[in-house]
Amino acid sequence: MIPVQPERFLKDLHDLRAIGASGVGKGVVRPAYSEADITARDWLADRLREAGLEVRFDPMGSVFGLADGPSLLMGSHSDTQPEGGWLDGALGVISALEVARAAREAGGPAVSVVSFQDEEGRFGVTTGSAAWSGVLPEEDVGKLVDPSGVSLAEARSAMGARLGDWVDPARFTGFVEMHIEQGPVLDQTGGKIGVVEAIVGIRDMVIRFEGQQNHAGTTPMAMRRDAFQALSTFNQRINDHFRNVVTPATVWTVGHVSVHPNAHSVVPGKVAFSMQWRDGDPERLARMEQIIRDTASEVAGDMGLSLEFGPMLGVEPVAMDATLRAVLAGAAEIETPGKWRHMPSGALHDASNMARLMPAAMLFVPSIGGISHDFAEDTAEPDLVSGLNVLARAVARIGA
Amino acid sequence: MIPVQPERFLKDLHDLRAIGASGVGKGVVRPAYSEADITARDWLADRLREAGLEVRFDPMGSVFGLADGPSLLMGSHSDTQPEGGWLDGALGVISALEVARAAREAGGPAVSVVSFQDEEGRFGVTTGSAAWSGVLPEEDVGKLVDPSGVSLAEARSAMGARLGDWVDPARFTGFVEMHIEQGPVLDQTGGKIGVVEAIVGIRDMVIRFEGQQNHAGTTPMAMRRDAFQALSTFNQRINDHFRNVVTPATVWTVGHVSVHPNAHSVVPGKVAFSMQWRDGDPERLARMEQIIRDTASEVAGDMGLSLEFGPMLGVEPVAMDATLRAVLAGAAEIETPGKWRHMPSGALHDASNMARLMPAAMLFVPSIGGISHDFAEDTAEPDLVSGLNVLARAVARIGA
Repeated sequence: MIPVQPERFLKDLHDLRAIGASGVGKGVVRPAYSEADITARDWLADRLREAGLEVRFDPMGSVFGLADGPSLLMGSHSDTQPEGGWLDGALGVISALEVARAAREAGGPAVSVVSFQDEEGRFGVTTGSAAWSGVLPEEDVGKLVDPSGVSLAEARSAMGARLGDWVDPARFTGFVEMHIEQGPVLDQTGGKIGVVEAIVGIRDMVIRFEGQQNHAGTTPMAMRRDAFQALSTFNQRINDHFRNVVTPATVWTVGHVSVHPNAHSVVPGKVAFSMQWRDGDPERLARMEQIIRDTASEVAGDMGLSLEFGPMLGVEPVAMDATLRAVLAGAAEIETPGKWRHMPSGALHDASNMARLMPAAMLFVPSIGGISHDFAEDTAEPDLVSGLNVLARAVARIGA
Repeated sequence: MIPVQPERFLKDLHDLRAIGASGVGKGVVRPAYSEADITARDWLADRLREAGLEVRFDPMGSVFGLADGPSLLMGSHSDTQPEGGWLDGALGVISALEVARAAREAGGPAVSVVSFQDEEGRFGVTTGSAAWSGVLPEEDVGKLVDPSGVSLAEARSAMGARLGDWVDPARFTGFVEMHIEQGPVLDQTGGKIGVVEAIVGIRDMVIRFEGQQNHAGTTPMAMRRDAFQALSTFNQRINDHFRNVVTPATVWTVGHVSVHPNAHSVVPGKVAFSMQWRDGDPERLARMEQIIRDTASEVAGDMGLSLEFGPMLGVEPVAMDATLRAVLAGAAEIETPGKWRHMPSGALHDASNMARLMPAAMLFVPSIGGISHDFAEDTAEPDLVSGLNVLARAVARIGA
């Protein structure tokens, strides 16, 4: 086990939290390329230098602390949501700093550190690691604009002369990311560590039913073609039809609903809604898509409405590296015997992109109440230290 | 039968349509107190004077054409929705004009005519007749403001010196209103005339479920408290629970839905939606309310959400006068044998308020495609004439 220092790790975490502190609980406001984000990256660069690592900012503003020669890369991201938690990506960055620092103090193995830029997606989805891995083609980076109309080029210019060349991924032997779970599973089951099996794939599409807008007083029930009723019937049938296809880890959500004209006294003529589903198995995702399309067609036919499917967003599932997973699982069993589990990640992470470049793996610690992307996000400090210790044990085994 | 002249009646209908013509199909734009509305009322006043009736504008701007002595009052309203049809209330006004005129030419019976102001509710609900009948107390009239912030007092001032005193309702022996159905029942069943049994009562309330907003990727289905799922389940159960309580004339509608935060990747934490139901029987309305409250509580309990009911809007059902209904039904059977029906009115009308002052009744003619409050609203001219003839037969029987 690498001789990590939990006190130093927690102090760094709290020091980083002070940069962009929201003043509400432990909340942090540090969106990508904001003044607080850049200050945090400069603070991190100082810590990396003190640890004896070579600091490099890549063209996106991701910060690297590079060990000499081949090394294991560890880290996550230090940008936050507009109303973010103190741990989220910061936990993965500071735990990587502590492991790399302690490993260097102990004479090895060689560990490098990264804090990716814009994982939270001000300009896209896991933007910094997507650009480095080629998931986001270089020609598309120049076109990115945030929701308020600021271009990535403009925002990035605030990082000025810091920005350098791309880091060569071939120097890294693998990637390990610790992150908070951002969900309730560990917290509700008393688990301390989650070893991620796969980052789930996502399918997301908008479905539209169009019936007939009518007066809600003068149109008998039997003569209606009510678009909201079609949505409600579709939703109930989908919940039923999915039963024999899904696993307990599969999720699906109707999160967005738009009813037209949305008035008390008018039978809805149109409805548009989002259907999103996630699973680690691409075949299951495809079977669910077929059930969704068939069920919507069946409802439209039964109720006399027309039906339209929007374009489908697809993010493929990414399996974590089997060897790294096994080492993490072994370390978790020593550190938290009987209190760890294999589990999928239902959220996207930088590790998805890293898996395109090198063997990649992820570790989760519990989120209290499953809360994330909120000032109230938190994890008990003993659980943070357990996560650090699992990394310290695993990295000693992995070596460089 | 009073010797009405269909050609003269249709010419007047088309002449009135030219005032505020939308230029789209036969559509009309003549909202209460607009220049077009006031021009139309002046045009009507001229026709009433020509027919030998005494013209009076009441304090709201409703126009009366008064016969001497006790008389039957007939009419409806000549204001329209911002995008209105040419018939809607105009049909009831012009058919009343023709019947009153023809009756006077024939030496009786005495028939008076009214075009109520703001039936379409720029400032309220059936505003002119509600004020006259006392449903809308005089002290509240002064507080009325339209959706764009114009006060009724300001809008009404455009009618200037036309406005006079209230007409004494005691001079009228009853009220008969012809109107388009504004629904699909006659059109789809080949009916020509509807004799209204009752103007239905309305109950309307907002229901709110609050669960837990969560990440749509990291929250397993079994740990969700999804507010949209609660709405969908409530909706399906209500459709089922109502089955043994409702009649084919009962209607209920979820017309407004607001999901929070309404994002593809977030499990909805809150939903607010409108539940509106209409029926001619106050006891049935009350039983439906109990089912709604019980079902919502049951869903909230089953799914672990909190529940809140908004205040309930209540409009009581108004039965039409039995004697007038019988006379209208007799006339309909002569004019359109086997092609008329008793039916409720699912929409509100001025006749609701008139029933507080005197015996009141209503007659419907078909709406093509059930379309109303739309430039495309229409009725075949032979059906308009059938309606006129039923009135002419019935009024001869009713007398003054």
